[in-house]
Amino acid sequence: MEIRVMANILENNDKYAAAVRQRLADNKVFAVNMMGSPGCGKTSLLERTISALQNELKLAVIEGDLFTAKDAERVERCGVPVVQINTGGGCHLDANMVNSALDSLALDKLDLVIIENVGNLVCPAEFDLGEDIKVAILSTTEGEDKPLKYPLAFQKSSAALLNKIDLLPYTCFDLTAVEKDIYKLNPSLMLFKISCRTNEGLNYWYDWLIRQVEAKNHTKESS
Amino acid sequence: MEIRVMANILENNDKYAAAVRQRLADNKVFAVNMMGSPGCGKTSLLERTISALQNELKLAVIEGDLFTAKDAERVERCGVPVVQINTGGGCHLDANMVNSALDSLALDKLDLVIIENVGNLVCPAEFDLGEDIKVAILSTTEGEDKPLKYPLAFQKSSAALLNKIDLLPYTCFDLTAVEKDIYKLNPSLMLFKISCRTNEGLNYWYDWLIRQVEAKNHTKESS
Repeated sequence: MEIRVMANILENNDKYAAAVRQRLADNKVFAVNMMGSPGCGKTSLLERTISALQNELKLAVIEGDLFTAKDAERVERCGVPVVQINTGGGCHLDANMVNSALDSLALDKLDLVIIENVGNLVCPAEFDLGEDIKVAILSTTEGEDKPLKYPLAFQKSSAALLNKIDLLPYTCFDLTAVEKDIYKLNPSLMLFKISCRTNEGLNYWYDWLIRQVEAKNHTKESS
Repeated sequence: MEIRVMANILENNDKYAAAVRQRLADNKVFAVNMMGSPGCGKTSLLERTISALQNELKLAVIEGDLFTAKDAERVERCGVPVVQINTGGGCHLDANMVNSALDSLALDKLDLVIIENVGNLVCPAEFDLGEDIKVAILSTTEGEDKPLKYPLAFQKSSAALLNKIDLLPYTCFDLTAVEKDIYKLNPSLMLFKISCRTNEGLNYWYDWLIRQVEAKNHTKESS
């Protein structure tokens, strides 16, 4: 019974995800769905990424939170358009919410939309938002056992960002083990070791993200 | 439609929660439901708490995880009975799962059952497991904005443990702000500042927990 209900919800979600995907394609906009636990550094990564990329790409942000507009306010200070979705307690964004949020953005003027999902390493991974790629963020202070315990987020992502690498000397985090586990779950994942505090490793992430956006635009223009 | 389904699920859950509560009361067993994000330190806290309390209290553990028995194996090494629940991707424990897990424990020989919920600061807070108290665990590396962004876990808990206090000098965590926000959400919450790595502050938690268990037993004997 519960399974049937879940299937209906996902089926419904997939209809909206297809609509989102079509709207993004029509406007040649690339979309990234950022997933990770509360406090792994999603909003800090967003702030750094906006600063680094906003001269090169026209970007906007969709912020998912249970309550509050704290993250949207942080992003707004970076000077890009931002739409806040409050799920009112709901543990993930769904494609219907994202489809509504797109109404508030001038899609024809954008290259990239970054969606910051609700802080949760479990539920967001189950819902297609119509994005081009998912990325998973994990921080060194969460422990190296997390990929195997929360595999779906890593299996469904194109990239994983291992944040707070500057705190490595103060933790007992096993970097070798986590890399091995991540590649076992998803051999084609791009793994970035970063610190949003010291900026370590972020240039590789920026370059890679720009390449993904450009590749999508190029594909669209030549087709 | 979705709301009605959710109501049915919760109603069903509450029936099982009542059954769990009755079984615990019949056997004078105190139960704690531990909630927090992946990597906040739930299993480390369990390990420390078992070591400190196992001469004083007869305790057992119910481990909730999506997949793997990694945490149950860690707890088993501490020398107490442990039952692993794998939710198979499900984002929280429910009372039906806990009720089944109790079948594997000799309840008449126990004083305390600690339930480690799935690593998730959102969904577990919505489900009554029949426990006596919920406790929320937050770590300093997650950032001080978390209580207001994920209020339910703090509102429903009797205690909050602020873990990784030893990493405070290496983060920009605002301790004063988080304390203010936590007490705004729940003025009667007990707040413990701890480090499972250095053992800082853990004695206060042990003493408080023992008092809760003893109070429950005392109440039962005199009624």
